Amino acid sequence: MLPSAPPPPPAPPAPHAGARVSVVVVGASGYTGAELLRYLTAHPRADVRAVYGHSKAGLPLGEVFPSLAHSALRLSAFDPDAAAEEASVAFLALPHGASQEAARALRERGVRVVDLSADHRFSDPAEYARVYGVPHAHPALLAEAVYGLPELFRDEVRGAGLVACPGCYPTSVALGAAPALRAGLARDAEVIADCKSGVSGAGRAPKEASLLSERAESMQGYQTLAHRHAPEMEATLGRVLAAAAGEDARGQRARGVARVHFAPHLAPMSRGILSTLYLRLRAGVTAEEVRAAYEASYAGEPLVTLLPPEQSPTTLAVRGTSRCHLGLTVKGDLLVVHSAIDNLGKGAAGQAVQCFNLMVGLDESLGLTAAGLYP
Amino acid sequence: MLPSAPPPPPAPPAPHAGARVSVVVVGASGYTGAELLRYLTAHPRADVRAVYGHSKAGLPLGEVFPSLAHSALRLSAFDPDAAAEEASVAFLALPHGASQEAARALRERGVRVVDLSADHRFSDPAEYARVYGVPHAHPALLAEAVYGLPELFRDEVRGAGLVACPGCYPTSVALGAAPALRAGLARDAEVIADCKSGVSGAGRAPKEASLLSERAESMQGYQTLAHRHAPEMEATLGRVLAAAAGEDARGQRARGVARVHFAPHLAPMSRGILSTLYLRLRAGVTAEEVRAAYEASYAGEPLVTLLPPEQSPTTLAVRGTSRCHLGLTVKGDLLVVHSAIDNLGKGAAGQAVQCFNLMVGLDESLGLTAAGLYP
Amino acid sequence: MLPSAPPPPPAPPAPHAGARVSVVVVGASGYTGAELLRYLTAHPRADVRAVYGHSKAGLPLGEVFPSLAHSALRLSAFDPDAAAEEASVAFLALPHGASQEAARALRERGVRVVDLSADHRFSDPAEYARVYGVPHAHPALLAEAVYGLPELFRDEVRGAGLVACPGCYPTSVALGAAPALRAGLARDAEVIADCKSGVSGAGRAPKEASLLSERAESMQGYQTLAHRHAPEMEATLGRVLAAAAGEDARGQRARGVARVHFAPHLAPMSRGILSTLYLRLRAGVTAEEVRAAYEASYAGEPLVTLLPPEQSPTTLAVRGTSRCHLGLTVKGDLLVVHSAIDNLGKGAAGQAVQCFNLMVGLDESLGLTAAGLYP
Amino acid sequence: MLPSAPPPPPAPPAPHAGARVSVVVVGASGYTGAELLRYLTAHPRADVRAVYGHSKAGLPLGEVFPSLAHSALRLSAFDPDAAAEEASVAFLALPHGASQEAARALRERGVRVVDLSADHRFSDPAEYARVYGVPHAHPALLAEAVYGLPELFRDEVRGAGLVACPGCYPTSVALGAAPALRAGLARDAEVIADCKSGVSGAGRAPKEASLLSERAESMQGYQTLAHRHAPEMEATLGRVLAAAAGEDARGQRARGVARVHFAPHLAPMSRGILSTLYLRLRAGVTAEEVRAAYEASYAGEPLVTLLPPEQSPTTLAVRGTSRCHLGLTVKGDLLVVHSAIDNLGKGAAGQAVQCFNLMVGLDESLGLTAAGLYP
Repeated sequence: MLPSAPPPPPAPPAPHAGARVSVVVVGASGYTGAELLRYLTAHPRADVRAVYGHSKAGLPLGEVFPSLAHSALRLSAFDPDAAAEEASVAFLALPHGASQEAARALRERGVRVVDLSADHRFSDPAEYARVYGVPHAHPALLAEAVYGLPELFRDEVRGAGLVACPGCYPTSVALGAAPALRAGLARDAEVIADCKSGVSGAGRAPKEASLLSERAESMQGYQTLAHRHAPEMEATLGRVLAAAAGEDARGQRARGVARVHFAPHLAPMSRGILSTLYLRLRAGVTAEEVRAAYEASYAGEPLVTLLPPEQSPTTLAVRGTSRCHLGLTVKGDLLVVHSAIDNLGKGAAGQAVQCFNLMVGLDESLGLTAAGLYP
Repeated sequence: MLPSAPPPPPAPPAPHAGARVSVVVVGASGYTGAELLRYLTAHPRADVRAVYGHSKAGLPLGEVFPSLAHSALRLSAFDPDAAAEEASVAFLALPHGASQEAARALRERGVRVVDLSADHRFSDPAEYARVYGVPHAHPALLAEAVYGLPELFRDEVRGAGLVACPGCYPTSVALGAAPALRAGLARDAEVIADCKSGVSGAGRAPKEASLLSERAESMQGYQTLAHRHAPEMEATLGRVLAAAAGEDARGQRARGVARVHFAPHLAPMSRGILSTLYLRLRAGVTAEEVRAAYEASYAGEPLVTLLPPEQSPTTLAVRGTSRCHLGLTVKGDLLVVHSAIDNLGKGAAGQAVQCFNLMVGLDESLGLTAAGLYP
Repeated sequence: MLPSAPPPPPAPPAPHAGARVSVVVVGASGYTGAELLRYLTAHPRADVRAVYGHSKAGLPLGEVFPSLAHSALRLSAFDPDAAAEEASVAFLALPHGASQEAARALRERGVRVVDLSADHRFSDPAEYARVYGVPHAHPALLAEAVYGLPELFRDEVRGAGLVACPGCYPTSVALGAAPALRAGLARDAEVIADCKSGVSGAGRAPKEASLLSERAESMQGYQTLAHRHAPEMEATLGRVLAAAAGEDARGQRARGVARVHFAPHLAPMSRGILSTLYLRLRAGVTAEEVRAAYEASYAGEPLVTLLPPEQSPTTLAVRGTSRCHLGLTVKGDLLVVHSAIDNLGKGAAGQAVQCFNLMVGLDESLGLTAAGLYP
Repeated sequence: MLPSAPPPPPAPPAPHAGARVSVVVVGASGYTGAELLRYLTAHPRADVRAVYGHSKAGLPLGEVFPSLAHSALRLSAFDPDAAAEEASVAFLALPHGASQEAARALRERGVRVVDLSADHRFSDPAEYARVYGVPHAHPALLAEAVYGLPELFRDEVRGAGLVACPGCYPTSVALGAAPALRAGLARDAEVIADCKSGVSGAGRAPKEASLLSERAESMQGYQTLAHRHAPEMEATLGRVLAAAAGEDARGQRARGVARVHFAPHLAPMSRGILSTLYLRLRAGVTAEEVRAAYEASYAGEPLVTLLPPEQSPTTLAVRGTSRCHLGLTVKGDLLVVHSAIDNLGKGAAGQAVQCFNLMVGLDESLGLTAAGLYP
């Protein structure tokens, strides 16, 4: 966590031992919804009371997701009054743009919200409008929302009423770059992020570009230097820099402005993101100093693992988890960081559950500690 | 469960609420071992005390399985005395043939054993010798061992000291064919089993035939009508027939001898088995009768789901689980059953944990209820 | 070829040495169209003069198929007059139902037609209407059309004006079952066909069920015993039986009616069909007799290979080709045939080119002899 | 081609029209050998007279490569005298290190050699020894060998007796970076090369790391900044710079020294390399200038295609070909080049055939013009 973080708010009281927190899921017909329900239906302290889905209202969950064929749950149309009656926490797995109304309705009714969409990731309405091309419908929500990346902003998440879960790409890039920037090791706060994503990141809506026949045996870049996750990455790393300012061991102030050159790629796989980050080190910075900075950043983190030097992260090893694996290579003044997550896990649903745990005072990694499937 | 099963032995006392059962895993460097450790390290009532592996003794678990990079466990050389001191239950994930000595050593020391290998699946030493080409080293163990397929032989598993987990193919075929045979619906006890397996079934040992470049885009039959899992299938279904004898609603006695024509195939995927079974129905048997027989067999089963008629089982929906999904098609006198499991889950490690739960008096599906990853 | 086939019509005169046959492709925006253009643009004696596509008219071919980025061709709207002026042969890669009008227009203008759709595969209009649920718009075309499976009906293809290319499943099943039926080795003319297909068989139209995230790691049956390719298989094998009638070495007349129990499956791959066929042999038929029958059927066939006993066909080995690989297993009275083709090659475009070669008097396998990619 | 290239040697006389060039393949049991035989057995002017393979001598080719089941060829032990009698050109698809003796024996006997291994890619014996850790056995061969990348060094290949085919990674990187360096657009001759390769690049020898179960769903970096292809890339691009020196339109001399920061990755696919290159542009260089430089470099190249701005290269579109697809993105002073090839095609066997065509005076792209399989 940021050494310079403000003192944490008093943690909310944990639910009574054994008591379960009632939750609802809004918008559960895509892959993020499936993963969320996988986590929540097995979570020892969560009680899924309702699952809302507009287009598939009425269907049993098992018809929407064959992996939940054993579930007795059915989708119903979203009703904020009913949701407020049922649950104290709502997860929004809606398409970008659709979360704003739902979040407002739920917050007005006192329901705490974990939003997995991109709708509340910027605190500045102008920045939101610039990146997404339309003004935000409820800017007050942007002021309330906190950015749900616990390893960097844990204390803010603890007391939050509205948590905006980071995007999958930004999560992998921020976790991979933050320690070097925070410790002032990078020559300038500039990162080339070459990211390889599984196809599930493109969602479940049928598109020619997501067909197995188009994607198998296909590696391809897309939206090179033009993807809207780049500003989110820059905002997050900028906050890391600003928080670290003044504490640079070498006596130089960080600039508070990070630049990310973001080149996303689609890889022929379903899940996972491997981000390869290229940063220039300041003169004289050694591989040992880099390693020490990463160890210091993530010591004690339950879900981030810095691999030993002889191992290199792979998306397979974190599939189905909310974990992040990191690997470091230094040669001359070049630092290469490999950062692997599951785009639907740590990049979406797993992180949402991690935030939920923090919000309601449970152990942060409750329900999230299982290892990935191997193979 | 078999209606004709003998009265169950008294269930062993469950461990005190909250107490954990100490276990060890013997032979944990292959995929079955990885899956077993995935289940056991997340199991709420199991405590993994040691992990034994001959060739990789001394290595941290995370070097053997990158998905366990966060684990503090290390492999050590198998020592039955130490194992007996540490644990009350041992899981054997050894290669076929290697379990016999380990099982003997552990049973002599009072440790209960769940064997995932093929070493104790036949009760008749002569049958074992015939199928595996060598005599069994400790035939007494065959007499003690029970066949760990809870949906068919639950009560035997409950009190067992030595459980022989079924093979992956036999599990999928037995669960798919048993209800029709038991209810006397099949014209003769003859099954064509066209099975499609993921490549992980061939193990982790490097073989040209298991390379991604050889298997991607490759569907291929192998050991057609000559695979040694066929006798195991026939033995299991023969027991089902024998148990049902005399109870046939149509008044005919089952023969007690089942024939399985088994054609295994490798599919271009890592995990999963889809078995397509072809059975001839007796004259006049209707689709409704067939469906009713399957519903009766699996009503209340926590891990077997008969899909609604409009859905067809897929390996994806059960991946990473100990579940079985079944689908039925009847046309004329032909019954086609689709049976989907995860070869490493219900086909190996998941079923081993299910048996463990039964052996020690825990809820049978404890630690096994999570839905599969989708996608 | 069928020993009982009628005397062949006089072969059409081959084009002058070196002269090229002008062709057009109608409906070239799907996978069948892509494969056809791959073959035709590299064919030493074909000259692609125009490529027609309704929805993508005006686009360069390379925008529709990135693999043809180097091509100077553009799609244009179909115009039968222009086509008749440009070309002597037209390939129709239109969706089922759409070929009828195009075929009529082209045949009226004297253009010879190779139809890759299902529109002209039945000679009986009533059978067409029964299987496809609507009457055929131009039944006279059904009378003219010949079924383009050269290994079984070569002589008919030679002089044809309208060739109906078989479906991918029927091709693999017919090539696999015909020799046993023809030689009177099967106890009854009944075949269980368990077929595993790549996802490209479902076409390029975006569908949830064809997404990589839905199909990777997924084996699944569909339309079990209810797929409309079954009647096509039965018609083809019925013709084989009828042609062989009276020639049965054992003195029994074949019935002329074949039954195929067809269970298609989707495999997690892009291309390929592996059909596993189960037939009951007549009492006393030996493995050697079976092998001899297949060798006799396919001796000299340039594109069908009976593998040696120790090898088993795989879709990988025929990918990108118009070849068929066959493997045989006999145990007791059960014959299992494995038949592997590329669904887009021998199952569609490759076979179309093979028919084209025959129609215009070229060497049948011209442009089709290259081996498959391995891997 | 390099504008500054020396005047070409007189082209060798083309073989008489229709005459075929006799060739042999040495070391044909790996994937490179399979691809080479796929090209050569279908090549209109090559005649494969013998196929040599040590470990599989005596086997029919179809047992080694199921895709060649129809071939009558058999492997035999390598015999340079027999090879010299049979053929005028030999292709060496031997493991690195093993080509040196074979090349010497063949060159002594007057056979022209196309070497697909890494053994003759450096002209400087000291550089070879530094990169591969052992001295070259026959340094005189290094002096004779020319680097077989026709788009950059075509004229040298034309008259050559010994051609060293480039590695797969270096081919994709050199084709992607050369135009920018040659035209003096890059701020310094420094390239970050983030390359994603299919698993076939690791060869056919069984290794745990190449198993389908380890690689499916797995993106992973390896040998980051430590792969021995980097010096080969630097040598090639250094030659490009040196050749361009003095011709820089902006009046600055290129340095002749290129630096490549090379981060290879394994992607979950069989074939293909997508290289993503990051270069810093000199101040004021525009996207239009960059595009113009690439167009100028590759105008008229039969096998390199610069995609239109709205398309992005994919490995799928070049699979099974000897083609290279390039895409460009410029933002600020950053140029991102995507370069896609088939690692076994343009990255190995296809390029070898292209060099062969040049060596013997045939059209350079003979036998190489077919489009890739799509899908």
